[in-house]
Amino acid sequence: MKQEKILVLLSGGIDSTTCLAMAIDKVGKENVETLNITYGQKHVKEIECAQKIANHYGVNYALIDLKEIMKYSNCSLLEHSTDEIKHQSYVEQLKELGGEGTVDTYVPFRNGLMLSVAASYALSKDCQVIYYGAHADDSAGRAYPDCSPEFSNAMTMAIYEGSGKKVTMAAPLINFNKTQVVAEGLRLQAPYQFSWSCYEGNEKACGTCATCIDRLKAFMENGVKDPIKYEGDVNE
Amino acid sequence: MKQEKILVLLSGGIDSTTCLAMAIDKVGKENVETLNITYGQKHVKEIECAQKIANHYGVNYALIDLKEIMKYSNCSLLEHSTDEIKHQSYVEQLKELGGEGTVDTYVPFRNGLMLSVAASYALSKDCQVIYYGAHADDSAGRAYPDCSPEFSNAMTMAIYEGSGKKVTMAAPLINFNKTQVVAEGLRLQAPYQFSWSCYEGNEKACGTCATCIDRLKAFMENGVKDPIKYEGDVNE
Repeated sequence: MKQEKILVLLSGGIDSTTCLAMAIDKVGKENVETLNITYGQKHVKEIECAQKIANHYGVNYALIDLKEIMKYSNCSLLEHSTDEIKHQSYVEQLKELGGEGTVDTYVPFRNGLMLSVAASYALSKDCQVIYYGAHADDSAGRAYPDCSPEFSNAMTMAIYEGSGKKVTMAAPLINFNKTQVVAEGLRLQAPYQFSWSCYEGNEKACGTCATCIDRLKAFMENGVKDPIKYEGDVNE
Repeated sequence: MKQEKILVLLSGGIDSTTCLAMAIDKVGKENVETLNITYGQKHVKEIECAQKIANHYGVNYALIDLKEIMKYSNCSLLEHSTDEIKHQSYVEQLKELGGEGTVDTYVPFRNGLMLSVAASYALSKDCQVIYYGAHADDSAGRAYPDCSPEFSNAMTMAIYEGSGKKVTMAAPLINFNKTQVVAEGLRLQAPYQFSWSCYEGNEKACGTCATCIDRLKAFMENGVKDPIKYEGDVNE
């Protein structure tokens, strides 16, 4: 039987870094491809981080930019947007939205776009599986509708059918919360020292944006110090 | 109740021109947006045609290029490919492939990509429905797996869930064969004189590539002369 090949969507954050560690653990690095899909973010820090993580493992790495597609979208993460990134947790943003709604960092149908690009790339590289890093916390309160299990199931089927039954999709973290994601990554020695989560692109992570708050909590609950640098050394 | 807004994927061919005529017939041109998604084709002829069709109706028109995404794909339609476009019908190509398989003009997961881009754009333009021109002949023998009803159903669900239940998708031609598509367009006075189907980008349509063969047959079966110009005036 032909060895399975896995394409990992690698953004440079905690979730995709953990997915990559799991894929390599499963099929070996020679059967893993990584693809980083960008979409006109305001900073390049996470792109550099994704490249470093791929280099750490010695796996193939490709970068595709969706900026052209996003030119009509408004979202505080995009460089052409004048909206400022909010420095509060998703829980607080959702509270202000009355429990339901999309947060300021929702890029319209971003994950659908990314997964479609991944499907096309997987077909070109003869990969049978796409790993992506959606996890349980993402869909809480529907902050990101394109991270929900319902979306994930439908998109998996669309990719399977639309690829002529050659490509399928897996979200190996879908039942994990962030703390469990970090626990799995620590077990597999994922190179979190090269990862980046902060929405700002400064030298050190801000420690106060929604993803920094999430990330710090996940490491703390694992009883481990987050290996990256923060403003004011809040992780000490 | 707020008037429904429809986003029509307009490529400049017979199918999408018919979809546009149907959308305008349903909700009026002021509630229709058109989006042309290109992917590094070898010629710009169909792009000019799509623009002319939108102008004919006076509807909003936008163009998004997926060339960057397709840079890793091989397909005879793409300008970076050295493969030549085959001048034989899909039926013949499928016969050579043993009845199943993808034809040379299959762009990996093209429709999945296009519909994802459309979903993102629809969210930005406050459209609730995306019309796209898949029809019954496209999925015969699975020449294009991303035109199958199974794909279409799964993708509809993915877009609905991934957009936070704001956008849905409709393929109003899905049960029509090409001859029935043309019949519906003729009934609605679709501006077929501006449309383009030929895979080559010359001044006149070649009359011998797979889409020319399909198109000529559909007009002939409706007892109507195709209004565009062909090499050797084969439509006379």
